[in-house]
Amino acid sequence: MTSSYKSYQTVETLPSVIGQSVVLNGWVYDSTGKGKLQFIKLRDGSGTVQCVLFKGNVSEELFAEAKTLTQESAVRITGTVRAEERAPSGVEVDVTDLKILSLSKDYPITPKEHGIEFLMSNRHLWLRSSRQHAIMRVRAVIVKAIRDFFDGNGFVLADSPILTPAACEGTSTLFETEYFDLGKAYLSQSGQLYAEASAMALGKVYTFGPTFRAEKSKTRRHLTEFWMVEPEMAFFDLNDDMDLAEDMVEYIVQTVLKHRRKELESLGRDISKLEAVRRPFHRMSYTEAVEWLNKNNVKLNRKQPDGTEIQIDFPWGEDFGSPQEEAIMQQFDKPCIIHRYPSEVKAFYMKRDPENPKVALAMDMLAPEGAGEIIGGSQREDDYEALKERILSHDLPLESFEWFLDLRRYGSVPHSGFGLGLERTVKWITGAEHIREVIPYPRMITRIEP
Amino acid sequence: MTSSYKSYQTVETLPSVIGQSVVLNGWVYDSTGKGKLQFIKLRDGSGTVQCVLFKGNVSEELFAEAKTLTQESAVRITGTVRAEERAPSGVEVDVTDLKILSLSKDYPITPKEHGIEFLMSNRHLWLRSSRQHAIMRVRAVIVKAIRDFFDGNGFVLADSPILTPAACEGTSTLFETEYFDLGKAYLSQSGQLYAEASAMALGKVYTFGPTFRAEKSKTRRHLTEFWMVEPEMAFFDLNDDMDLAEDMVEYIVQTVLKHRRKELESLGRDISKLEAVRRPFHRMSYTEAVEWLNKNNVKLNRKQPDGTEIQIDFPWGEDFGSPQEEAIMQQFDKPCIIHRYPSEVKAFYMKRDPENPKVALAMDMLAPEGAGEIIGGSQREDDYEALKERILSHDLPLESFEWFLDLRRYGSVPHSGFGLGLERTVKWITGAEHIREVIPYPRMITRIEP
Repeated sequence: MTSSYKSYQTVETLPSVIGQSVVLNGWVYDSTGKGKLQFIKLRDGSGTVQCVLFKGNVSEELFAEAKTLTQESAVRITGTVRAEERAPSGVEVDVTDLKILSLSKDYPITPKEHGIEFLMSNRHLWLRSSRQHAIMRVRAVIVKAIRDFFDGNGFVLADSPILTPAACEGTSTLFETEYFDLGKAYLSQSGQLYAEASAMALGKVYTFGPTFRAEKSKTRRHLTEFWMVEPEMAFFDLNDDMDLAEDMVEYIVQTVLKHRRKELESLGRDISKLEAVRRPFHRMSYTEAVEWLNKNNVKLNRKQPDGTEIQIDFPWGEDFGSPQEEAIMQQFDKPCIIHRYPSEVKAFYMKRDPENPKVALAMDMLAPEGAGEIIGGSQREDDYEALKERILSHDLPLESFEWFLDLRRYGSVPHSGFGLGLERTVKWITGAEHIREVIPYPRMITRIEP
Repeated sequence: MTSSYKSYQTVETLPSVIGQSVVLNGWVYDSTGKGKLQFIKLRDGSGTVQCVLFKGNVSEELFAEAKTLTQESAVRITGTVRAEERAPSGVEVDVTDLKILSLSKDYPITPKEHGIEFLMSNRHLWLRSSRQHAIMRVRAVIVKAIRDFFDGNGFVLADSPILTPAACEGTSTLFETEYFDLGKAYLSQSGQLYAEASAMALGKVYTFGPTFRAEKSKTRRHLTEFWMVEPEMAFFDLNDDMDLAEDMVEYIVQTVLKHRRKELESLGRDISKLEAVRRPFHRMSYTEAVEWLNKNNVKLNRKQPDGTEIQIDFPWGEDFGSPQEEAIMQQFDKPCIIHRYPSEVKAFYMKRDPENPKVALAMDMLAPEGAGEIIGGSQREDDYEALKERILSHDLPLESFEWFLDLRRYGSVPHSGFGLGLERTVKWITGAEHIREVIPYPRMITRIEP
């Protein structure tokens, strides 16, 4: 039995069959006539190529039919591949035969400008446009780079569940659903706690799936459903964790440059900015970052009891917001890790720095060019009593965390991990302005369709 | 900056450093003394190795301390790697130093038999046992094989959303959640409809994520949360679809044999059965399958109005259940695809066979050894009027499917796809008896913890 589907030619592979006759299936991106020539820009999902129909080469009927082609009509084109150095793909196709599979009428997305709500409502069609197409192809390579990085470095994929019985950090920003006779279940906003259990079984693991936040944040950086990869490593301390995060991000960016340079160029991305993303990245402690802010007069706006605002020095202990992060990153051309944040602003499961219990062994990686935080991670609390005490002081239900405490009862070891937000990473690397463009079907607080 | 974490040795890589001194971090699987020797079976997630502590090589204190080691205590062992052909891993470690990281007390999972409910409640610890460890390592390689297969064959990953506004086939088996001010959202039970839209933009795509069924099925083959990979290909007909499915399954099985043979052997899997999974697989039409059942006297139990049961010939038009599938598969040593099912028993979006409208261009792949259905797929209805008529006759809300109909309005093309259930595939390949063992944290109608 032969695989007939393997004989289908795609636009992507045309440069390897110059001079040969091929059959291409695809959609008309654009079709314009000029005398005895009809130029059909064909897209087939793998790329676009110009197909040239010369009146003398085909029947009168066929030439007339080709003139009726509209945007997004589906066609099967037979033709000869010709090298054409002026073409972006390096080739053109001289058409010898053409079959119309379906004529498209009044395709709603025309080359003119459309409002964003219209495009979002037509996301299922908008994906066909060259810009969205390029972003999706970059996204897919980023996912592959992430998985290859971990699979190639001794990690075992161990996916955490989506449906979880209790909240990791309160239920206020969780989607909930009825779960048979067992009460409510919640959609996970992080696979970390389960990844910790998996790491104790498998050493180095990662979980990579959709996560959910029912948060009423309406920014260019927030989705209610987004993908996150979360590695978790037994025996890794905070330094190992930061080293791994740098290795991974360098690998992702350099892999995209290798395999999707054409797409980045078509998006108008400044490639040199990505080429600079090489280890070592920058690192500073939170305390150093606060000193830097105050030395450079980056003030914090603080509301007074009487309603007026004053500008104050950034107080140690407060969490950074976008203004602080952006100010810090303006000096850097590659990512920077900020580590050892005040314990008070970080999650209960993070280990305190033995040398200074006021800070947690936490780290965030900020991307340059205003892209903001792409990674958050930490060394985890591995002391049973310390963790239990913190669960109680955070008013979390102890019984829900007994299994998590088991990891400190039975063979507790130093361990660390982090989470990388996929969409924020795609947004940074593609240079997309808004996060809604970097996931096939974005979900936001005002959008769940199509 | 050097990556310190890279210098950590793992059990998996020991055969390449025979004669060298190494440092291993891990957990005690078993520790037994015999005179001046203490044998510590160490697991570190990547594998297990026997470490031998000879009293003469270490201090009295250290030897005494090593004797206190309990199951699942965490240790750091320094020692010399020695070839040992009687050992399953081919090596042993002669201990020169040992540091106890944490002593484990009364680890609940002992070598004795435990009830399944107890093990399920301790899933976070049960994963550490050698059998579960092996299954998880096979699972990870199956996922990687699937992704590599598609990434290497011109597919673009385009993940479908989990939160969806309306049901693809009724809401009775869907988990639902409140979605801000937009009413109810449902957890997707298939990414197919969105994958069809993605395929019109990107040609060949796949979506691979968790899917959800709030179905009250309590069998060895049902989970409420499970992973599914769904490729969708523009311009593929049913034959292409079946060819692709065969190629993929062959690639998965042969990749597992190549990279996880040791794990399969430790699970007691009959390797020869998997080696036989080579193309071409078997194929028969539904009609041929019915004829085979009747020729071989595989009767159907049919309840009569008076409550008694009689045995009848299998009537054309009825869907197959497990008894029919198992009877058919008993003759085969590799998977079989059954195609062209009666339209009535298949989904509304499947294309009718132009040569016989009573059957749909559908196909299911059944795995041998009683593993049952692992793939369901079809060529999709690409005619606007036919699809619209079917949506209406199935009493589905037309307005929710307008975007899906758009794919037939604008550049409709023949296209096909299928879904492979990850857990059913892992169950088949590992030979696990129950599906609860083949996902890290199983979710079933009576189980959402830990």
